[in-house]
Amino acid sequence: MTRRQHILIEAAKLFKEKGYSATSMRDLADKVGLEAASLYNHIRSKEDILQEICFDIAARYVAQLAEIEANNDSTVEKLNALIYLHITMIAGNREEVYVCNNEWKHLTEPHLARFKEVRKGYETRFLNIIKKGIEQDELQAVNPTTALYTILSAVRWVEIWYQPNRGIAVEEIAKDISTVLINGLKL
Amino acid sequence: MTRRQHILIEAAKLFKEKGYSATSMRDLADKVGLEAASLYNHIRSKEDILQEICFDIAARYVAQLAEIEANNDSTVEKLNALIYLHITMIAGNREEVYVCNNEWKHLTEPHLARFKEVRKGYETRFLNIIKKGIEQDELQAVNPTTALYTILSAVRWVEIWYQPNRGIAVEEIAKDISTVLINGLKL
Repeated sequence: MTRRQHILIEAAKLFKEKGYSATSMRDLADKVGLEAASLYNHIRSKEDILQEICFDIAARYVAQLAEIEANNDSTVEKLNALIYLHITMIAGNREEVYVCNNEWKHLTEPHLARFKEVRKGYETRFLNIIKKGIEQDELQAVNPTTALYTILSAVRWVEIWYQPNRGIAVEEIAKDISTVLINGLKL
Repeated sequence: MTRRQHILIEAAKLFKEKGYSATSMRDLADKVGLEAASLYNHIRSKEDILQEICFDIAARYVAQLAEIEANNDSTVEKLNALIYLHITMIAGNREEVYVCNNEWKHLTEPHLARFKEVRKGYETRFLNIIKKGIEQDELQAVNPTTALYTILSAVRWVEIWYQPNRGIAVEEIAKDISTVLINGLKL
C-alpha cells in the first residue's frame, strides 16, 4: 500500500466516525503519524480526499454494473448480482462506501454536479434492468422506481451494522437479503 | 393547533433541513415569528424539543406495534401492517420521523439511554414476530436479524424521497414495498 492509499483509508475512517465537516487535516495528520506540513506532500486538501473516495467508489459500482448489463443472465440473476455487488462493496470498503453514500453532499462544484450525474446514471441503468424485467414478465408489475429505491435502501443497514466479527458471513447476509427482495419473505 | 405544537413542527423542519447541531434557537424564533425571549415561554431548550419529537414518534410506533402484536392476524398480515405503519408514519410526519431516525444521537443522558432502550424494545418485538413466523413455517428460513434490518432499512428511502406531489400515492408505495418484501420481486 502506498502512503497515499494509507492516508485515504484513514481519512475515510475519520470522515465516517466524526463526519467530513468535523474532521480537520490536523486530525488526519495525527491519525497517520505525519506532521500536518508533510501531509500536504501527499494530499492537496481535505476536499481532494473526499473527491477521490467518492469518485473511486462510484467508478467501481459503475464498472460492475456495466459487466452485469452486458452478460446474458436473466433479470433475476442480474438483480441477484447487483444485490451481491452492493453488499460485498459495503463489507469490503465499509468506511469508503459510507463516506460516498453519506458525505458526498460536501463536495463543491463542479465536482458535486458531476457526482450527482454519475449517481443518477447508475440509478437510471439499474432502473432500466428492472423495467425490462417487468416488461418481459420476469418481475412483478410494481412501480419500477419504488422497486429500485427499495432495493438500494434495503442493503444500507449493512453499512452501519456489518463488522467482520458479528458472526454472520457476508455471503450469508447477501443470500438472505436476495431471498427477501427477490423471492419474498413469505414461504 | 397550539403555539407549542406549531413550534415543534417548525423545529422538526429546521432539524431535518440544517441538522439539529446547526439549528439555533434564534433560527427557530425567526421561523415561528417570535422574539427569542418569547420562544422560551413555550419551550425550555433545543434539546427539550428534540426529546419531545423523538419520544413522541417512538411512542406512536410502539402503540401501533402493540395493536399488531395483539391481533389474530397471520405473520404475513402482521408484517404487511408493520410495513404500512412505517410508510404512513413517514408520509404523515416526514420531518418528525426523519429527526427521530437521524438526529436522536444528539440526545444527552439519561434521555439517550432511554431512547436506545425504547428503540431496542421495538426492534426486539418486531424480531419476535419474524422469528415466530419462521418457526411456524409462514416465512422463509432466513436469518431473522437480517430480515428485520432489511425491512426497516427498505422503507427508509421514503423519508428522503416522498413528497405529496411526486405523483405516487402513499398507499401505492406501501403496497409495492410490501409486494417486494413479502412476495418478492420475482414473478
